[in-house]
Amino acid sequence: MSKPSIPKGTRDFSPNIMAKRKFILSTIENVYQTFGFMPLETPAMENLTTLTGKYGNEGDQLLFKILNSGDFLNDIDLSQYDSKKLTPYISEKGLRYDLTVPLARFVVMNQHLINFPFKRYQMQPVWRADRPQKNRYREFWQCDADVLGTSSLLCEADFIAIYHQVFSKLQINEYEIRINHRKLLEATIEKANASQYFKEITVIIDKLDKIGPDGVRNELSQLGIFDTDINTIFSLLNKKVFNQQTIQDIEKSFQNSELANQALADLNNILSLVGDKPQNVFFDGSLARGLDYYTGCIFEVVPTSIKMGSISGGGRYDNLTGMFGLNGISGVGISFGIDRLYDLMEELQLFPEQQTHFTDLLFCPLDEAGISYCMPLANDLRKQGIKTEIYPQASKIKKQLDYANQKQIKWAAIVGENELKNNQIMLKNLLVGEQALINKMDILNFINI
Amino acid sequence: MSKPSIPKGTRDFSPNIMAKRKFILSTIENVYQTFGFMPLETPAMENLTTLTGKYGNEGDQLLFKILNSGDFLNDIDLSQYDSKKLTPYISEKGLRYDLTVPLARFVVMNQHLINFPFKRYQMQPVWRADRPQKNRYREFWQCDADVLGTSSLLCEADFIAIYHQVFSKLQINEYEIRINHRKLLEATIEKANASQYFKEITVIIDKLDKIGPDGVRNELSQLGIFDTDINTIFSLLNKKVFNQQTIQDIEKSFQNSELANQALADLNNILSLVGDKPQNVFFDGSLARGLDYYTGCIFEVVPTSIKMGSISGGGRYDNLTGMFGLNGISGVGISFGIDRLYDLMEELQLFPEQQTHFTDLLFCPLDEAGISYCMPLANDLRKQGIKTEIYPQASKIKKQLDYANQKQIKWAAIVGENELKNNQIMLKNLLVGEQALINKMDILNFINI
Repeated sequence: MSKPSIPKGTRDFSPNIMAKRKFILSTIENVYQTFGFMPLETPAMENLTTLTGKYGNEGDQLLFKILNSGDFLNDIDLSQYDSKKLTPYISEKGLRYDLTVPLARFVVMNQHLINFPFKRYQMQPVWRADRPQKNRYREFWQCDADVLGTSSLLCEADFIAIYHQVFSKLQINEYEIRINHRKLLEATIEKANASQYFKEITVIIDKLDKIGPDGVRNELSQLGIFDTDINTIFSLLNKKVFNQQTIQDIEKSFQNSELANQALADLNNILSLVGDKPQNVFFDGSLARGLDYYTGCIFEVVPTSIKMGSISGGGRYDNLTGMFGLNGISGVGISFGIDRLYDLMEELQLFPEQQTHFTDLLFCPLDEAGISYCMPLANDLRKQGIKTEIYPQASKIKKQLDYANQKQIKWAAIVGENELKNNQIMLKNLLVGEQALINKMDILNFINI
Repeated sequence: MSKPSIPKGTRDFSPNIMAKRKFILSTIENVYQTFGFMPLETPAMENLTTLTGKYGNEGDQLLFKILNSGDFLNDIDLSQYDSKKLTPYISEKGLRYDLTVPLARFVVMNQHLINFPFKRYQMQPVWRADRPQKNRYREFWQCDADVLGTSSLLCEADFIAIYHQVFSKLQINEYEIRINHRKLLEATIEKANASQYFKEITVIIDKLDKIGPDGVRNELSQLGIFDTDINTIFSLLNKKVFNQQTIQDIEKSFQNSELANQALADLNNILSLVGDKPQNVFFDGSLARGLDYYTGCIFEVVPTSIKMGSISGGGRYDNLTGMFGLNGISGVGISFGIDRLYDLMEELQLFPEQQTHFTDLLFCPLDEAGISYCMPLANDLRKQGIKTEIYPQASKIKKQLDYANQKQIKWAAIVGENELKNNQIMLKNLLVGEQALINKMDILNFINI
């Protein structure tokens, strides 16, 4: 029998990791809920007609496709096909690639039942047949919140407040919320006489952090853009304090650009809602966000105490549901990257200790009779919410305490012959090593979880 | 553009359904945790070598297989193949079919890191390419807890206590926990001189509820079992109170059966831990549980106020990890059927009202200035855990209150020109229709969520 293994790029989440992941996920979920977002879950499998063509050519290649059930070859004359041509005949379903396309699909299918503006959050795994490498997985979690059916900039302001609350609860203090506007990028590129290369330029600008200003200049130059125009672009890429003064400065450098005016009005509007110079928020003219469907404000959050990519991003899209034929629904959303957040919190040692232990108290029976003795006591503690176990065999005390220590259990309640006879418990605090003989009915009073 | 749809047998869980499902899942999770179980999650995809051969021939047919990425046909001479022969060449991964085989695979892979006895719970979707029909889905959730690495019957006793706590918290009062022992079934069939048909007979007996005693007699007869032997089997199928008297009665009808003695000793041992005649627990000699890997006590929970199949089941297995070459690890586990539990609670109207609303308070700004006015107030309430929204547009009040009513929001905080001028809020209780003009700083004192 060969040793079992799991597919490349997938992970088991063992209890210690799960506890920390759950802490992050429940913190985010909790904040989403206090802002009135409602949970949605969609199936892992979607029809390929739903997924294909939504993520670009590369995305189509990265979809995991599910083989049709039963005799999928049926009437196919195989000699006619290569893999690419055969696939549509033998596969109709694929695994979820993100949570945004399923959201659009859900909203279109349920448009007459939905109470707009529709605020939903969704925290589920997605799958991409990417080449697995460090910190890139084929199965990973997304953690999205979106508002659909309103163009109000209150939503953008709410997302800034959501960032503040989430990071405050996770005790992440050093971070930047970077904000830009796709129309300002458009205006910039228009001003540099390069509108026909808008897509290409945003992709290049997006790499500023990675390849540096010289790299960006080089690639822009290779696109055929003149040095003066490159200078124009660069003059607008700076990162600045996000306040009214910054907005006014940018305004001056444009003059009469309808696109810039729209963008700056939006940014102004957001400032009026969150207050001038909001905490941890910076205007970043170089922020581009790769995704095609963004049309308004865009966000990205980057930790500043450790060099690391963004831990969240998002933006406004005017016509997400247009891909399924429903036009005129504006929306805006953000997504947290759980794996990066996990790595960041691990490195900064931000996980609270109580998140990584599972049991508060272990009853340690020294003989068979002790097990029955502990049973009703354990069930009483459990009803009080105390996480309680009984060691299932009357093993040697050392073995039982080893188990407790490995599971980081604070309290051991030892029951030997004498304790049993006298309705007592030897209660031991395993963290400090102290112990006391107490009446069995008094446990709750002694443990201070 | 064709209308979007989702694959047969899959479901979207909209917010109202999600809220109820989360209530069930978090209740079970909470109880699992108070018994010292730890969370585990495994990937949706497993290697087909892990899955194949573990669920019988039919199970192998029902696995969803994932097409290899890239040029999966590569060097294959297609003319040589039909679907069945081709599959291993073009698919190496399949979707998780249950949570038990992945658990066994995880334990074998991580045996040297695990602190035994290993108590884990796992709540994740599984996929089966079954024919979709009413209440049978191709994607559904399982909700398992298992203890591996101990043969102690304390685990069985703990699971009975878990059932009591879960159903008490869900307010499900009318149910039966049915218990039997696979060795007692074996002894019964041995006594009826039909040991060579053990598997077939357990399958037939398992259908007693569905096809009735005459149906069972018929099928046993068709197997070639004599009427006297069928009578022997039937004499042992009764459901009885689970107490020491019952155990003694069964003992009398066997005499000198090693198998029966082992089973009855186990049942006796459980009684000594949970007390004689435990609440809602019944001995059921006809309980068989289809799965091959059970070897000891088996459980099933059935609601009694409504005719419905089992809502939970489980049992002890001596050698689950043997399928991956690791022998000698005894374990026991249970699983809740979330879809059935959901249907049951819906029918009995057991979902608490606070589980089905998402927002406590909606700020209703009557003009643009009102939105900025509400923003800091809303963020303060959110920090207190009050689920708060601001209607994102200064729409007509009717539209805003319609939104609130559809979302079952209790409080509306209306802000018009006068409220804004005087630092006030018109606070309206939408459930009873009363309203009061209050100072904006006093909101928290007035709302009693």
